[in-house]
Amino acid sequence: MGAAIGIFGLGVMGRSLALQLAEKGVAVAAFDPWPAARDEAAAAGVSGIAVSPEALVGALEKPGAVLLMVKAGEPVDDAISHLAPLLPAGALIADGGNSYFRDSERRANSLAARGIGFLGIGISGGETGARHGASIMAGGDAAGFRSLEPLLCRVAAEAGAKPCLAYFGGAGAGHFAKMVHNAIEYAEMQLIAEAVLLRRAAGSTWPKIADDVAHWNRGLGACYLLEITADILRASDRGTGLPLMEIVVGRAEQKGTGRWASVEALELGVPVPTLIEAVEARSLSAVREPSAPDMLAAERGVASSIPPEELGEALLVARIAVYDQGFALLHAAAVPHGVTGELAELAEIWRAGCIIRGALLDPIAAALRTGASRLLLAPALRDAASARLPAWRRTVASAASNGVPAPALASALAYYDGLRAAISSAALIQLQRDTFGAHGIERVDRAGRFHIDRAE
Amino acid sequence: MGAAIGIFGLGVMGRSLALQLAEKGVAVAAFDPWPAARDEAAAAGVSGIAVSPEALVGALEKPGAVLLMVKAGEPVDDAISHLAPLLPAGALIADGGNSYFRDSERRANSLAARGIGFLGIGISGGETGARHGASIMAGGDAAGFRSLEPLLCRVAAEAGAKPCLAYFGGAGAGHFAKMVHNAIEYAEMQLIAEAVLLRRAAGSTWPKIADDVAHWNRGLGACYLLEITADILRASDRGTGLPLMEIVVGRAEQKGTGRWASVEALELGVPVPTLIEAVEARSLSAVREPSAPDMLAAERGVASSIPPEELGEALLVARIAVYDQGFALLHAAAVPHGVTGELAELAEIWRAGCIIRGALLDPIAAALRTGASRLLLAPALRDAASARLPAWRRTVASAASNGVPAPALASALAYYDGLRAAISSAALIQLQRDTFGAHGIERVDRAGRFHIDRAE
Repeated sequence: MGAAIGIFGLGVMGRSLALQLAEKGVAVAAFDPWPAARDEAAAAGVSGIAVSPEALVGALEKPGAVLLMVKAGEPVDDAISHLAPLLPAGALIADGGNSYFRDSERRANSLAARGIGFLGIGISGGETGARHGASIMAGGDAAGFRSLEPLLCRVAAEAGAKPCLAYFGGAGAGHFAKMVHNAIEYAEMQLIAEAVLLRRAAGSTWPKIADDVAHWNRGLGACYLLEITADILRASDRGTGLPLMEIVVGRAEQKGTGRWASVEALELGVPVPTLIEAVEARSLSAVREPSAPDMLAAERGVASSIPPEELGEALLVARIAVYDQGFALLHAAAVPHGVTGELAELAEIWRAGCIIRGALLDPIAAALRTGASRLLLAPALRDAASARLPAWRRTVASAASNGVPAPALASALAYYDGLRAAISSAALIQLQRDTFGAHGIERVDRAGRFHIDRAE
Repeated sequence: MGAAIGIFGLGVMGRSLALQLAEKGVAVAAFDPWPAARDEAAAAGVSGIAVSPEALVGALEKPGAVLLMVKAGEPVDDAISHLAPLLPAGALIADGGNSYFRDSERRANSLAARGIGFLGIGISGGETGARHGASIMAGGDAAGFRSLEPLLCRVAAEAGAKPCLAYFGGAGAGHFAKMVHNAIEYAEMQLIAEAVLLRRAAGSTWPKIADDVAHWNRGLGACYLLEITADILRASDRGTGLPLMEIVVGRAEQKGTGRWASVEALELGVPVPTLIEAVEARSLSAVREPSAPDMLAAERGVASSIPPEELGEALLVARIAVYDQGFALLHAAAVPHGVTGELAELAEIWRAGCIIRGALLDPIAAALRTGASRLLLAPALRDAASARLPAWRRTVASAASNGVPAPALASALAYYDGLRAAISSAALIQLQRDTFGAHGIERVDRAGRFHIDRAE
């Protein structure tokens, strides 16, 4: 009997998935165009490694299903161009990389013309998730999904006794969901970093801050990113003995998903300012002049600090605002990008396996189950936010006063206050635009557009 | 003798330019596909109105130059498709609308294939600028620009005895410059609105706030947008007698240039968080639930306020940060988008005619003349910012404490602090990414990428 699935691409993620599938009794064939990657995979224990695309396809149960685990972009198109001519009609190609959802839409269309099904699958969880259970967001060929579902279930993490695997409709929907997952991940990482640096600016030590982070990682605040952060802050570098935070350059890279989500939100007109601030903070770290801190060093703020408990509260409520923005973006993508699955289910499959897993996903999933379209207005989350609002306000005010950059904490608070403001800045902006550009205004007392009509 | 230029499109901007050109002795032909627009233009005093594209082209001095003044997007392509077959090789089509710079690049290429020159021209100044002197940013066919330059000079505003007209290289460069102008305009409008609403939240009346704004509109802070804002805040509605601020809906529209600039900056990796927050604030005003303010109304902040003088200082320094971001984006566009003109010249032509004109452009132009690539680090601007920093910090802290949304003021401060921070949030983010995704880190003590190597 042939292999139930072929894994194309044996980097960290592909190799780990192959091992997990084999361990769970699935017959797997595997291939990587680079001999060194094949050797490494074999050394790691992957079996069924083919030496050519032809051999990979030949090893599959007919008509054949191949899961691509290669870098997003051209490598995916390359792999498809090698595989598609070898596969019969009725075969399935699934892309498990971090692909741009529009590429997945395009690839599905071009494969459909050859009678080959396509699934775009976002897989979160990094190496550990791929090896021991990931969170899996799929979209594309519905029959193809049903045929792969039992197999994918085996490599999905479990939350509440349900596998973290869901299907969201269009060929790009799985990658769209993963893109938003990553944008939320960027924002949560940025928020955590800001909270940590606020403690540091207040004079605390890295191990003490690790203890604070461990406290934040409790109850509703508990999440994987805080867990690893506490661990990082406690650790030191083997070679130098210095805390890890002191041997690392303050410059972060990005692979594109945060930026894609930002661009998509801008194009859909969905405000996601905090998701974008997190992308911008990484960009700033990459381009800022090395001399800038010295040149501006004299500009110290006043010395004051926020108790760590309050910082933890601020962090939690800012995270709620981040999910509010991410789910608003997903809502808006239903029609244009076929994200037609239930968003409550998405929140549920984010409860385990993936990088943003955490206790907050429970009330979020519950709110989405009741049909909430704006998480910050859903009663349970609104109450959770409201209770922590004074701490949030003090935190943002303190960061501004002390000169500690907190773009995401501040942006999330301004977003919250923008939702609740009785008078919007947009009122004045309408009047300015009509004054210089004759764009017209909307009035509170009648429908339509009018020009300003001033009393003399 | 034929007309020196044909104006295609007789809306507010086209009509006003036609009148100004005629007044300044230029022989103009004009056309609009809509008879009603032609009639209105005739009634407003425009002469030389042709009744067809053929008649427009026939009225021109050979080979002929036509300035399109139609809405961005399809109307430009429509106009070109009607005009191009009528024009001989060597003719020139200039697009004076708010076109997307990539469209201008595309149009230049397709017209070049027919031997027709193309100029993409950004014109700022609204109706008044078009009628009495605008700020004009051109790009595209160099010979075509030289031939139209004397004529464009006549409709350019003057600053420092120089016409506000400059050429920036590539076919999309003029529209790119105009796009950034508009993104800065969005951000300055948002900053002003935030400052105004902070005064309002402190209990001031609209006429008193108008007085504050008039004070901010002095010295280095003086600018057109503050001038019209003071005027707006003093005015009342003829029909109801209410202050204008109380008859207008708090929902702002946008035509796309702010969003385009945001997307472009994201794609170029240039951080422009404050430009984007201004776009996001408009989007939030457009999508927020009408019930949200009531649902969240209980979440009032503490009562405190910032003296208007300090608010004016905060506003000024935040505006400097906005220009820093805008010019960083322009810098980055030199190679990919042919924005090869001198940026100092761009700052100079923004000193009059356009919507963002103001005293701040003088030190900005001076800093750019000395080769500054980061305005916040240029000595004169750095000093101007530094002197106002305490007021800025107090303002952002007060907004956060009082629950007044100030996303742009806060974002600009976080950007400034991000430039000067000794430890970047990106340090922790690198460590987190290596922990869950094996992305590697950069170290301060050796070149290359490494994985975390912990001491046991």
